[in-house]
Amino acid sequence: MKFIISRDQLITSVQDVMKAISSRTVIPILTGIKIEAKKHGIILTGSDSDISIESYIPAEQDENVNIEHIEEGSIVLQAKYFPDIVRKLPEKMVEIESDENLKLTIRSGKAEFNLNGQDAEEYPQLPTLQTDESFEMPTDLLKSLTKQTVFAVSTMETRPILTGVHMKLNANTLTFTATDSHRLASREIPVNETNVEFSNIVVPGKSLTELNKILGDTPEPVEISVTNNQILFRTKHLKFMSRLLDGNYPETSRLIPDQSKTVLHVKTKELLNTIDRASLLAKEERNNVVKLTTEGDHLVEITSNSPEVGTVAEEITVQSMEGEELKISFSSKYMIDALKAIEYDDVKIEFTGAMRPFIIRPANEDPILQLILPVRTY
Amino acid sequence: MKFIISRDQLITSVQDVMKAISSRTVIPILTGIKIEAKKHGIILTGSDSDISIESYIPAEQDENVNIEHIEEGSIVLQAKYFPDIVRKLPEKMVEIESDENLKLTIRSGKAEFNLNGQDAEEYPQLPTLQTDESFEMPTDLLKSLTKQTVFAVSTMETRPILTGVHMKLNANTLTFTATDSHRLASREIPVNETNVEFSNIVVPGKSLTELNKILGDTPEPVEISVTNNQILFRTKHLKFMSRLLDGNYPETSRLIPDQSKTVLHVKTKELLNTIDRASLLAKEERNNVVKLTTEGDHLVEITSNSPEVGTVAEEITVQSMEGEELKISFSSKYMIDALKAIEYDDVKIEFTGAMRPFIIRPANEDPILQLILPVRTY
Repeated sequence: MKFIISRDQLITSVQDVMKAISSRTVIPILTGIKIEAKKHGIILTGSDSDISIESYIPAEQDENVNIEHIEEGSIVLQAKYFPDIVRKLPEKMVEIESDENLKLTIRSGKAEFNLNGQDAEEYPQLPTLQTDESFEMPTDLLKSLTKQTVFAVSTMETRPILTGVHMKLNANTLTFTATDSHRLASREIPVNETNVEFSNIVVPGKSLTELNKILGDTPEPVEISVTNNQILFRTKHLKFMSRLLDGNYPETSRLIPDQSKTVLHVKTKELLNTIDRASLLAKEERNNVVKLTTEGDHLVEITSNSPEVGTVAEEITVQSMEGEELKISFSSKYMIDALKAIEYDDVKIEFTGAMRPFIIRPANEDPILQLILPVRTY
Repeated sequence: MKFIISRDQLITSVQDVMKAISSRTVIPILTGIKIEAKKHGIILTGSDSDISIESYIPAEQDENVNIEHIEEGSIVLQAKYFPDIVRKLPEKMVEIESDENLKLTIRSGKAEFNLNGQDAEEYPQLPTLQTDESFEMPTDLLKSLTKQTVFAVSTMETRPILTGVHMKLNANTLTFTATDSHRLASREIPVNETNVEFSNIVVPGKSLTELNKILGDTPEPVEISVTNNQILFRTKHLKFMSRLLDGNYPETSRLIPDQSKTVLHVKTKELLNTIDRASLLAKEERNNVVKLTTEGDHLVEITSNSPEVGTVAEEITVQSMEGEELKISFSSKYMIDALKAIEYDDVKIEFTGAMRPFIIRPANEDPILQLILPVRTY
């Protein structure tokens, strides 16, 4: 194997596939990065067997030459050293060459690295997706869909299915839902016309978080294919594959109250900052609790107290308050996460009493829904 | 106590004194920050009993009003919450008020914090320096003197005296020296005419590192006073006091070879980058070793090998090589630290054989000296 490649192109691809590589894998060769040289370009692969990422660098692209003098071949290289080596090479072009003894030579300027490789034949075959069915959506929309839901997955392994994000595609509407049983985040968006439908697909939250780090903020399409146990996200030069979680995702729609007793309209940022301040005094307590008290039609008071440290209180003016007066306590962390996910200036909060879950939505009816269970205070 | 103060002024001062506050102190009240209001301004104090920092905010400065409505008094407040509270206050002005029950109220906009304070009378009296003798130097020069030496202090408590930087003032020349017994860094600079002289002052490396974080990059003077067991650095609005280390600092001048067998002149940055690359393959081994081999008058080869991973070699062109050919192995970490401390484009390295300490100096004879002990390789 041999090729001469632009250092900066190589750096980007290496960083992308590194997201799948873990030093704690049980399959030793998966601590490596697979490099394959083909006539038309270079393919890098990284995998921890849950997530697999392939990054493709075409030899030529938009009339620019990325790679020259390609001799086909493949090798697996220790991923621990390769990214730093590539990043610190002195010149813009890098020559990479391997011999029959699995020695890899990296040359750039006067620097020469000789590294021990492993046989690419021993690298596990990645599962191939047995489906021709796929649907497309803009990459940036997938990213915001993920960002608005994935924070609500459970981090506890007691109910593994809740560590994933539930995906449903029905009548050209894609819905993401995540819940840790104390709160829930969901959003639905229309997708391009497709025959694909599914309803019990659960993608590990970690996979979506890693995918979001790699995808660019671009409206270019990402193509999504789903089988029973795998999901594939494919962009122009990237394939991101994740296993799915086994099991049935709980029915969440009945958790969502369909009527309300108290409705607040408020500026998202103002409420967020006030709750952020109120949460300052109880840093060490997880999910520290704040209290919201309505005070007539246009005022809400946010309070918190931590017996050893002190108390904090702040009034904010709301745009409107309809329905019953209310006192309710909840986790400031959940509320901050939910308000950050809204992404609109104005928010509508619907309560059905101090002991019932409440709902936070953008005032403009964009179908983002955040639900939080209150905390009982005595 | 009561005053209204600019939030941004308060944030800066709080951040400065926080540098002295540790949550692991044995004296509970030292986890707090002392606030004193005087007619002319506010004094904040933090201390971990090794380091004490006082920051002063004058009520008026350059015809700007920083503080208004001062009622004198003092209180000690838990330092854990105060910085975040101040930083997140909604308005530019902050009202701070304490009552006779040691309750402190912080008001800004509609936000109100009520915090439990402690009696300032219980805060330890900081040692006062019994000396009228002091000398001055530009703040930025003190910072660079520190940066060029403090990294070489020992981090091991086996010889506590080596965890400090040795300061000597003699004939209007100030010398800083640090060594961990494997390497040594020193620099001397002229100071303004002064009667002060001392020769066995050892300041904890940690104190100087914290001081460097607080001092601005300004040529304004810093005034330094020294007693038997304390050193005080004073700028316009800041007092930084540190205890000194007990014991005799070793005589280091005899470590420095006064003749040399091989002299290299080389571009600092080029050598630094080459050694940085050569050090990449042995990340986990502390102080990983690289080898330097002269190859005639104008070439030097830097190599390193890590049996399991591979080897790296790079030639660099030197400006000149005089004397005997040489092969020498040393810690790449020490070499990188030393070259970074040089701060000039061209460097002169003087060797006296593969088993003897070698010296790195700027080519322009600025009295910065870095000494490194080689590593024996078999």
